[in-house]
Amino acid sequence: MKNDIPEPAGARAPHWNLGPVIEELRVSREATHNIRHHGRVRELPSREALTVIVNGLSAALFPTHYGRPNLTDESIDYFVGDTLTTTVNRLVEQVRRGLLFSAQPDDASEEALVQKAGAITRDFAAGLPGIRALLVSDVQAALAGDPAATSVAEIMLCYPGTIAILYHRFAHRLHQLGVPFLARLVSDIGHSLTGIDIHPGARIGGSFFIDHGTGVVIGETAIIGQRVRLYQAVTLGAKRFPAEENGTLIKGVARHPIVEDDVVIYAGATILGRITIGAGSTIGGNVWLTDSVAPGSTVSQAQMRSD
Amino acid sequence: MKNDIPEPAGARAPHWNLGPVIEELRVSREATHNIRHHGRVRELPSREALTVIVNGLSAALFPTHYGRPNLTDESIDYFVGDTLTTTVNRLVEQVRRGLLFSAQPDDASEEALVQKAGAITRDFAAGLPGIRALLVSDVQAALAGDPAATSVAEIMLCYPGTIAILYHRFAHRLHQLGVPFLARLVSDIGHSLTGIDIHPGARIGGSFFIDHGTGVVIGETAIIGQRVRLYQAVTLGAKRFPAEENGTLIKGVARHPIVEDDVVIYAGATILGRITIGAGSTIGGNVWLTDSVAPGSTVSQAQMRSD
Amino acid sequence: MKNDIPEPAGARAPHWNLGPVIEELRVSREATHNIRHHGRVRELPSREALTVIVNGLSAALFPTHYGRPNLTDESIDYFVGDTLTTTVNRLVEQVRRGLLFSAQPDDASEEALVQKAGAITRDFAAGLPGIRALLVSDVQAALAGDPAATSVAEIMLCYPGTIAILYHRFAHRLHQLGVPFLARLVSDIGHSLTGIDIHPGARIGGSFFIDHGTGVVIGETAIIGQRVRLYQAVTLGAKRFPAEENGTLIKGVARHPIVEDDVVIYAGATILGRITIGAGSTIGGNVWLTDSVAPGSTVSQAQMRSD
Amino acid sequence: MKNDIPEPAGARAPHWNLGPVIEELRVSREATHNIRHHGRVRELPSREALTVIVNGLSAALFPTHYGRPNLTDESIDYFVGDTLTTTVNRLVEQVRRGLLFSAQPDDASEEALVQKAGAITRDFAAGLPGIRALLVSDVQAALAGDPAATSVAEIMLCYPGTIAILYHRFAHRLHQLGVPFLARLVSDIGHSLTGIDIHPGARIGGSFFIDHGTGVVIGETAIIGQRVRLYQAVTLGAKRFPAEENGTLIKGVARHPIVEDDVVIYAGATILGRITIGAGSTIGGNVWLTDSVAPGSTVSQAQMRSD
Amino acid sequence: MKNDIPEPAGARAPHWNLGPVIEELRVSREATHNIRHHGRVRELPSREALTVIVNGLSAALFPTHYGRPNLTDESIDYFVGDTLTTTVNRLVEQVRRGLLFSAQPDDASEEALVQKAGAITRDFAAGLPGIRALLVSDVQAALAGDPAATSVAEIMLCYPGTIAILYHRFAHRLHQLGVPFLARLVSDIGHSLTGIDIHPGARIGGSFFIDHGTGVVIGETAIIGQRVRLYQAVTLGAKRFPAEENGTLIKGVARHPIVEDDVVIYAGATILGRITIGAGSTIGGNVWLTDSVAPGSTVSQAQMRSD
Amino acid sequence: MKNDIPEPAGARAPHWNLGPVIEELRVSREATHNIRHHGRVRELPSREALTVIVNGLSAALFPTHYGRPNLTDESIDYFVGDTLTTTVNRLVEQVRRGLLFSAQPDDASEEALVQKAGAITRDFAAGLPGIRALLVSDVQAALAGDPAATSVAEIMLCYPGTIAILYHRFAHRLHQLGVPFLARLVSDIGHSLTGIDIHPGARIGGSFFIDHGTGVVIGETAIIGQRVRLYQAVTLGAKRFPAEENGTLIKGVARHPIVEDDVVIYAGATILGRITIGAGSTIGGNVWLTDSVAPGSTVSQAQMRSD
Repeated sequence: MKNDIPEPAGARAPHWNLGPVIEELRVSREATHNIRHHGRVRELPSREALTVIVNGLSAALFPTHYGRPNLTDESIDYFVGDTLTTTVNRLVEQVRRGLLFSAQPDDASEEALVQKAGAITRDFAAGLPGIRALLVSDVQAALAGDPAATSVAEIMLCYPGTIAILYHRFAHRLHQLGVPFLARLVSDIGHSLTGIDIHPGARIGGSFFIDHGTGVVIGETAIIGQRVRLYQAVTLGAKRFPAEENGTLIKGVARHPIVEDDVVIYAGATILGRITIGAGSTIGGNVWLTDSVAPGSTVSQAQMRSD
Repeated sequence: MKNDIPEPAGARAPHWNLGPVIEELRVSREATHNIRHHGRVRELPSREALTVIVNGLSAALFPTHYGRPNLTDESIDYFVGDTLTTTVNRLVEQVRRGLLFSAQPDDASEEALVQKAGAITRDFAAGLPGIRALLVSDVQAALAGDPAATSVAEIMLCYPGTIAILYHRFAHRLHQLGVPFLARLVSDIGHSLTGIDIHPGARIGGSFFIDHGTGVVIGETAIIGQRVRLYQAVTLGAKRFPAEENGTLIKGVARHPIVEDDVVIYAGATILGRITIGAGSTIGGNVWLTDSVAPGSTVSQAQMRSD
Repeated sequence: MKNDIPEPAGARAPHWNLGPVIEELRVSREATHNIRHHGRVRELPSREALTVIVNGLSAALFPTHYGRPNLTDESIDYFVGDTLTTTVNRLVEQVRRGLLFSAQPDDASEEALVQKAGAITRDFAAGLPGIRALLVSDVQAALAGDPAATSVAEIMLCYPGTIAILYHRFAHRLHQLGVPFLARLVSDIGHSLTGIDIHPGARIGGSFFIDHGTGVVIGETAIIGQRVRLYQAVTLGAKRFPAEENGTLIKGVARHPIVEDDVVIYAGATILGRITIGAGSTIGGNVWLTDSVAPGSTVSQAQMRSD
Repeated sequence: MKNDIPEPAGARAPHWNLGPVIEELRVSREATHNIRHHGRVRELPSREALTVIVNGLSAALFPTHYGRPNLTDESIDYFVGDTLTTTVNRLVEQVRRGLLFSAQPDDASEEALVQKAGAITRDFAAGLPGIRALLVSDVQAALAGDPAATSVAEIMLCYPGTIAILYHRFAHRLHQLGVPFLARLVSDIGHSLTGIDIHPGARIGGSFFIDHGTGVVIGETAIIGQRVRLYQAVTLGAKRFPAEENGTLIKGVARHPIVEDDVVIYAGATILGRITIGAGSTIGGNVWLTDSVAPGSTVSQAQMRSD
Repeated sequence: MKNDIPEPAGARAPHWNLGPVIEELRVSREATHNIRHHGRVRELPSREALTVIVNGLSAALFPTHYGRPNLTDESIDYFVGDTLTTTVNRLVEQVRRGLLFSAQPDDASEEALVQKAGAITRDFAAGLPGIRALLVSDVQAALAGDPAATSVAEIMLCYPGTIAILYHRFAHRLHQLGVPFLARLVSDIGHSLTGIDIHPGARIGGSFFIDHGTGVVIGETAIIGQRVRLYQAVTLGAKRFPAEENGTLIKGVARHPIVEDDVVIYAGATILGRITIGAGSTIGGNVWLTDSVAPGSTVSQAQMRSD
Repeated sequence: MKNDIPEPAGARAPHWNLGPVIEELRVSREATHNIRHHGRVRELPSREALTVIVNGLSAALFPTHYGRPNLTDESIDYFVGDTLTTTVNRLVEQVRRGLLFSAQPDDASEEALVQKAGAITRDFAAGLPGIRALLVSDVQAALAGDPAATSVAEIMLCYPGTIAILYHRFAHRLHQLGVPFLARLVSDIGHSLTGIDIHPGARIGGSFFIDHGTGVVIGETAIIGQRVRLYQAVTLGAKRFPAEENGTLIKGVARHPIVEDDVVIYAGATILGRITIGAGSTIGGNVWLTDSVAPGSTVSQAQMRSD
């Protein structure tokens, strides 16, 4: 029984009168019971497991950069094969748990969930070479787009944007395959590591590059084309949320921007609503934009004056 | 003696001529000695211990989401009771250390500190059901306020705003009870995890929701009402810092905004100074605001033009 | 063989048909082979090792705050000496790896790299007292500059700005000594911990203070004087990137601002291009600035109106 | 991907020509396939899990000695309750795995195994107070029987005999309940920790004490009465193994000694076969005994002479 | 909350009816309460801490063999100094706890215990060079006495006898200094690692060598001279235990052998009672000896005949 | 800087006056310097690394029992291939270190050592299928020879004899290939786990079985045939050690028994010197034997009498 955190001990261990607190917490839990689960306990997907899974996928896709230092032509396929089988076996269990929160759990037997989790995981695995190709295009875009970048290794190891897009591409595929809850967890881990918040529902084309990245927010229904470049603190958000008459928000409506191919959006720009940024446009830093702009536009903020 | 990080070894272990460096560092330490501690060594509170403590408190308050996957009606109270007693025993030691930095350590015997730490910890524990009720209101506000949110589980596991407010509610209570240094450490851990920086002194009402959250800053003397909603990169800051004649900043003066009930503040808005945002107001994205606004106001930025 | 992450097991372990995926990944790797390494496998520097190394350097420089709780006059020099020798031995191995990515690896024998890594590490160690002096000035600037700060201990343990500048001062020294790749890794770890992104090439004077800090970006060729203070989300960035005729970006050109002594820059200000902010100037929050300002200037944003 | 054990890396990573070895190992596995499993993969019980489970049971039975240092009247039942529920939940999974090796796996559905594992675990839990009472009698016997013993705490923490009997009493109960494979694993862990080898089938009365203990062996069908004391290197073994005509050993025949109440057996004595050591007898050190002795006997070795 | 050991989860988490078991265990604890502690909770010394402490002492005494691979003339004293101060600070806490079980805890204030623990630890530290000298003599004896030994490194790293005597020399010193309970814990850890059981009370001269060692037992009051050599399974035990009229064993009486200088005792010999083995004697394997022998004697077992 | 073991802290951290102790230890180290190393620091092989390596080899040879629970036909070769390449890469580094202690380090360049380590490791890997075949024969012998054994899984997981022979077969191969120091370390780890001490030099035929095993000792030059069975505490030792005129022991002389095929040796038998136990003989428990016996002999101890 390990016990590393220091506590007072022996004669000094105090009495805390916790009985009433524990009782109040029990009453409080019962009051919120209805909200939290309907009938049966559902195992939550595990953040720790998903972190290990994303690391495993990254290592299988890019063994030289995210895998093991020692790989040779003799050993690399064994490494990839073993890492991938292990990781996929771990993923299927998390997908099963995720389905408990994504699907209608009431109308699915445990066996049906296991089958569905297996099918989703098999599809996910089959799509990995495609994801790798997208990620390679993203890395090349970074190398081309940042004058401070000196090598592929630097892009892959030192750029938060690379990590963010890596998490996103996995999360988005899980979202597409019908495990949105799991996808959200993956994207939130990426957010926590990088400060870049991309909803797994967002659809993002190849050769995508985010520089610096802290504070970037990309909403659920955003659509981004090929070769788009973003800087820190860019928001692709919703302008308003349609609500039903009783005030309940209507979920799933397309409410985030469409950004066409070859657009550059500089730091701090805020782009809101289901508008379209036409191909090849440049949006200046700190710009606030709620209307569509034609292809090839340049939008910039009026400059401040010094007094 | 574990030694995981690779080093050159054997015949290749070089000589570094560190003697003079160590000597210079000693001299340098002695020069700053006066600043750092007055007379006796004070044990610093531990970031690692506080992280474990916040995890323990979270598990005791929400055992289904932050505790253990396997809890049943038979076992849940044992789990809550054991987690809480363990956590409270760990907390009291950190409170004692925190008091060394918060109080006037010179006029308190070690025994008096132990007593005071015990009393503060007992008060803190007694207030946990109240904190739980606030947090439940926060989660419900998130569910109601974000069209992308699909379940309570998603709010609790995938929203950085939930983690930030969880850390804040614990930190604020510690601040109130007289251990501001400890409270700051707790809030800084939350900041590091979420990119959301809330000073433990800030007073925040129930049903509070921060979406996305990266870059939010809420200052020490801010006061926030019920049902307030913030987006990423909102600042509730100070406009200027009153200083004494000799230039020393005057600490503790009320200098951050008051945000009344039912206010919404969109991404990137900067609100500075001891102004009041009247109840029910909406502050648009990227707005820069240093004057009070009446209840029910809508403040928005002039839109940029595309060229 | 530890195996903590749950998987389906026994009769339920499914067949995944991974053979074709592994084959596709191999083909895909071969296609990108040329990009990734030229002829021989290069060991990558390790993020985990660098984190341990920065912790070791911090502990050696500030043993009371970042070292061990129990140090006395009798033991402190042993601790500093042992921590420093261990850390320097670990650093030299990472420097050697970093050189593989920084230098022209083709024209350097393995032995020459070991020699060069040793020389760089020895220089780095010799400069530690100087770095400590700079960091002490930074901490004192924070104490003087933030009305919410109550003690040196609070500055050192609870301020992300302190951590960011600590990582930067180590990273910058490595950059200066000729291991830019390693320097970038160190700065990216600091970025991930704090949300503050400082390129290791940036030159920053003493008594530097960043408050809150999330979203700050300081570019590669920025130059910052003495006693400068920044708030969250400040960008010192490039305005445009000079490209060669074929579109390739020209790397290394001075393209970020020069900030002279005693400047304060408030939250969200965006300062772009090789301009100069004259000594003693104050730049207001959210200001967008692409022209130089004279010493003593005050620049502020026009205020928004409430409707 | 952690990788702590040093390896040659980079240009020095050699080629091992492992392809043929891996191929030979595959062929070799296929040849022994029939022996190892019949038709379906069976998950093996885990030594690591069982170690944690025995620690948990020990802590639940003796929280002051094997639990946590800090327990008070307020917290002890929470600790016992939480430790016990956690441990029992872990045990049921190992019991299920153990049944795969103990029972006829072919005629049991997976669901039936889960049910049976649950029933066995529930019986095991219900018997824990009885096991505790036996262990208390063992500890008291040690205190009474060893002039070097000074306290109950010393008996519980510093005597390998205490650990051995603790493991045995759990293992024996599992053996009785129909999971002999699991019982063997538990007893082998105890053997590895103490050098004392007690087959889980052995039936041992209360107030049992083994001093020093290294090399003690107690066979599968041995029966030991109340208040028996053994010293190191005592063997209670089989004399010969009855075999069928074709030479196959007949398993399960009673072939080890019966030791009646109040017997003392000194170091190195070897007692073989289904003989009976009458109540109250004393068997001297290094004695070799293959015939029954009447109650109250004293058996000793002829002394050696010095030349 | 880490939870590595697999459990059934979700809908399958069973109800165990543990309430009555927990109740019975509570009743059972209360019945044995009187035995276990008198009035106040005493913190037990920690096996894990003592293992780390012995490793630390070993590293401080023999940094090349038990310390760190990388030590140079520049760094070795820092390593020894830091290891020793850390280890001594850890030891003093365990000594304090050990005193709670060794001394009369009723007549000692907490402060007095802290003082006494400090004094004992200081004495222990001062004696370390003497212990090192003894251990060097032991290693040289092994090198001289075993034809299979090829180097000092082999003796120090591959001989259980070296580990056993290392633990004993620390344990014996603690026993002498008045913390017999702690000494017993140290010796039991050594026993568990090596199968060699030496009571910390035993007094053992320099140049002592145990080969193979499994099953060796050396009793509390044994006295061993210089240059003695033992083989596996040798017992230096008590013949009988003097008891008081009421049957209570009299503790502390001298009851184990005296072995004079230059004696060799071969495998499996059993030597019992307060007898003297004269200097220079040789005791053959498996010999059973309960009478003193003169200096220079050779004692051997009559050989068995083959049938 | 982790620091789990409790220490006194803050105002209570005592001064230990360790300066003189550290000085004495330095002087003491210098006095023994000549013994310990000749000229240059040699990196010691690591016990921890070797434990991981033996686990890796075991998993590669028997993936179902010592590998991962989840292996399928699809994944097993990836697992074996990856485990084997990783393990062999780790082994070559330990072999290199072992050579520093086994060979004449003075007459070998670092490069030559690396080459030699590579060659030895390649030979070792090539021999693994042969070692597997031997181990399979050992397991079958155990199943046939112990009436208490119920399955191959039980033999592989619960029998210390299986672990001991596994370690021995690896250690012996390393010994043959010219790294005796490394071989000794491997065998000592096996000894510590099982209480069975087999010198890596011993030559042992197939179908070998040790039951219970605690206290078994098998000497460096022992030779054991096919299908031999031993019980606990059997010694195959040396009778006397030939010495040179000056008393120095002559190393490497054949001095341990030859045990021919199909011999059984019962518990506690001591067999000493370069004698031969003829094929098919049975040696009884506790027998002391120093002369050869003819094939087919039965040797037993005269029985003790009860008084």
